[in-house]
Amino acid sequence: MLGNFTYCNPTKLYFGRGAIENLNAELPKYGKNVVLVYGGGSIKKNGIYDEAVKLLRAHGKNVAEIAGVMPNPTVGKLYEGMQIARAHKAEFLLAVGGGSVCDYTKALAVSVHCEGDPWEKYYLNGEEPSCKVLPVGCVLTMVGTGSEMNAGAVITNPETKLKIGHVFTDEAVMPRFAVLDPAYTLTLPHYQMVAGIYDIFSHICEQYFSGEDDNTSDYLAEGLMRSLLHSSRIADKDMQNYEARSNIMWTATWALNTLISRGKATDWMVHMLGQAAGAYTDATHGMTLAAVSLPYYRRILPYGLQKFVRFAVNVWGVDPAGKTERQTAEEGLSAMERWMRGLGLVMRLSELGATEDMVEGMADSTLVLDGGYHVLSRDEIVGIFKESL
Amino acid sequence: MLGNFTYCNPTKLYFGRGAIENLNAELPKYGKNVVLVYGGGSIKKNGIYDEAVKLLRAHGKNVAEIAGVMPNPTVGKLYEGMQIARAHKAEFLLAVGGGSVCDYTKALAVSVHCEGDPWEKYYLNGEEPSCKVLPVGCVLTMVGTGSEMNAGAVITNPETKLKIGHVFTDEAVMPRFAVLDPAYTLTLPHYQMVAGIYDIFSHICEQYFSGEDDNTSDYLAEGLMRSLLHSSRIADKDMQNYEARSNIMWTATWALNTLISRGKATDWMVHMLGQAAGAYTDATHGMTLAAVSLPYYRRILPYGLQKFVRFAVNVWGVDPAGKTERQTAEEGLSAMERWMRGLGLVMRLSELGATEDMVEGMADSTLVLDGGYHVLSRDEIVGIFKESL
Repeated sequence: MLGNFTYCNPTKLYFGRGAIENLNAELPKYGKNVVLVYGGGSIKKNGIYDEAVKLLRAHGKNVAEIAGVMPNPTVGKLYEGMQIARAHKAEFLLAVGGGSVCDYTKALAVSVHCEGDPWEKYYLNGEEPSCKVLPVGCVLTMVGTGSEMNAGAVITNPETKLKIGHVFTDEAVMPRFAVLDPAYTLTLPHYQMVAGIYDIFSHICEQYFSGEDDNTSDYLAEGLMRSLLHSSRIADKDMQNYEARSNIMWTATWALNTLISRGKATDWMVHMLGQAAGAYTDATHGMTLAAVSLPYYRRILPYGLQKFVRFAVNVWGVDPAGKTERQTAEEGLSAMERWMRGLGLVMRLSELGATEDMVEGMADSTLVLDGGYHVLSRDEIVGIFKESL
Repeated sequence: MLGNFTYCNPTKLYFGRGAIENLNAELPKYGKNVVLVYGGGSIKKNGIYDEAVKLLRAHGKNVAEIAGVMPNPTVGKLYEGMQIARAHKAEFLLAVGGGSVCDYTKALAVSVHCEGDPWEKYYLNGEEPSCKVLPVGCVLTMVGTGSEMNAGAVITNPETKLKIGHVFTDEAVMPRFAVLDPAYTLTLPHYQMVAGIYDIFSHICEQYFSGEDDNTSDYLAEGLMRSLLHSSRIADKDMQNYEARSNIMWTATWALNTLISRGKATDWMVHMLGQAAGAYTDATHGMTLAAVSLPYYRRILPYGLQKFVRFAVNVWGVDPAGKTERQTAEEGLSAMERWMRGLGLVMRLSELGATEDMVEGMADSTLVLDGGYHVLSRDEIVGIFKESL
């Protein structure tokens, strides 16, 4: 832990079967006017909507709704929500959904009392809230983003093709509480489950493949990766395995709640590459990450050789005896590739709709970061996209 | 994560060199009347007292002091502190010291406005606070207990020879913030440093050696243990190594802030045995734990064989090829023993002043818990103490 840092994460997590009942303890803490936020309506099919509404009514809440929050919540949807929340004199926002719904609700929480344009203030200028921030609660129905225990909120402006994630530093933006019931995730299709698993794995890698110090954070990251590998192999064969799905849910929360980035640099280039590919293909986030990861990691391996050796030995159990460091490191990435193919992750951008003629545009859209082991040149980015096709 | 659980830990941690400057951000949040709590006065020699007082004055605080908090804070000292805090109309309590000072200050925080006798209410009856809880801040000067980020507070009644730890469930009892400056720990003697390291390791083991499920918590525990082993070996040879000491400090916090016990059973028998030995010898806590650990773990090994195999392979790097599970598990404990002896931990209770004639009394004083792999009989407890002599 060579760097100085602050850690604060006050979100209260209620974990386990039937955890939604804890709304009975939380709802009395907040005002009467509640806005219920959700996505495409799957929560109406699986009964979670009815459960939440029943509990809100039991506590005498006056409920307005914002429905139809999309996978990449737009600034237009944010403006629409601000009108609803203002008209309702909202005192509390309850998000019921996955990472997009959580992200959107946090963006709304800092926007309802914002005097200017929140897109300009928070996303274009990167400012922190100077207004009152509404309290947010979250009932999580999908796993992967970690949005339930952090202060990040990604919003997209389709007109300017800008998708910007703002990680607020004020912990008031974090959900006050989150309900994590692994049983809610059991009905997700296999494709979505494994995309979520890879999103989690990538979050950990982005924070792991950086820095030179022997940081406790990297040991925690290895623990989370080993747990995820173990449970992903069980869940892949037996999607209804509650124990495996619950470990995956818990791992997702801790993979991106700031813990494993304390006191060290972070990379995040796989997300930059994957998001650029996503802007051209509209493919599932976790799958774009999967398709670009190995070409990226194989390219930066020589620059972060020691860490890739450590990754091979500590995460994948590669025996380094009689091998060069390079061989050990490459064996680690080969083991990772076998795991990814075994889960059925999409390993090529072409399978997600990308074509050769998109490569230059995707490279133009890729934000280059400098926290990892090597800063990519434009040629290298083009090379990675070509290898990912 | 088979069990249902709640996790909430709002303590804000300021970590790194010079982190005490963050009092400038924290002190304005609390009232004018502050009670400064500390121990035997070493903070007056190393300058931390002057630093804290300077910052309190700069913020115009009206400061009273409770000095002389002892290693095992007594109920008498608690009553004395209550009088001081009440007379001062305390609005905020600032603990500057190690785990005992933090524990004492948290006990004081729930006692100042308590109508009855806090010893009876909280410790004998195990009740939760029904009164206002004063906010606590903590400037940590020693590493090991994790008290800076949990709601536990151990208080001792010397008259009735009862030493009781109450882990409050109300997160209002947790410190609002903690200042963790690894440089503060650099001046500690080697004996205290390694005792603290073993206390941390034992905290992790107590939560690890229990349960049968493949819990993410156990993977996080392994990560913490591996980090601690790595940094302890560096710090043992080079006590001034800031990086190693900072990793140890961070590991201590996460070893006992409830994270790695989520969703699983825990054991805590080593602490029960060590505390009984401590009551008879008044020896350093970490050393009593060290002396009883291996006799205890070797005795319960057959009952938790799979976990001891996992411990050997994942924590100590034992190669299981060509070995029985029993051999692999025993090799893990042998590796642990070599590490302990290498650090210079005290491995025998006799070296801490215990004698054969104390064994029956220590066994009588040992509270038997049932969360681990085997519930000890009285004969087994006597046997462990004899093997520990």
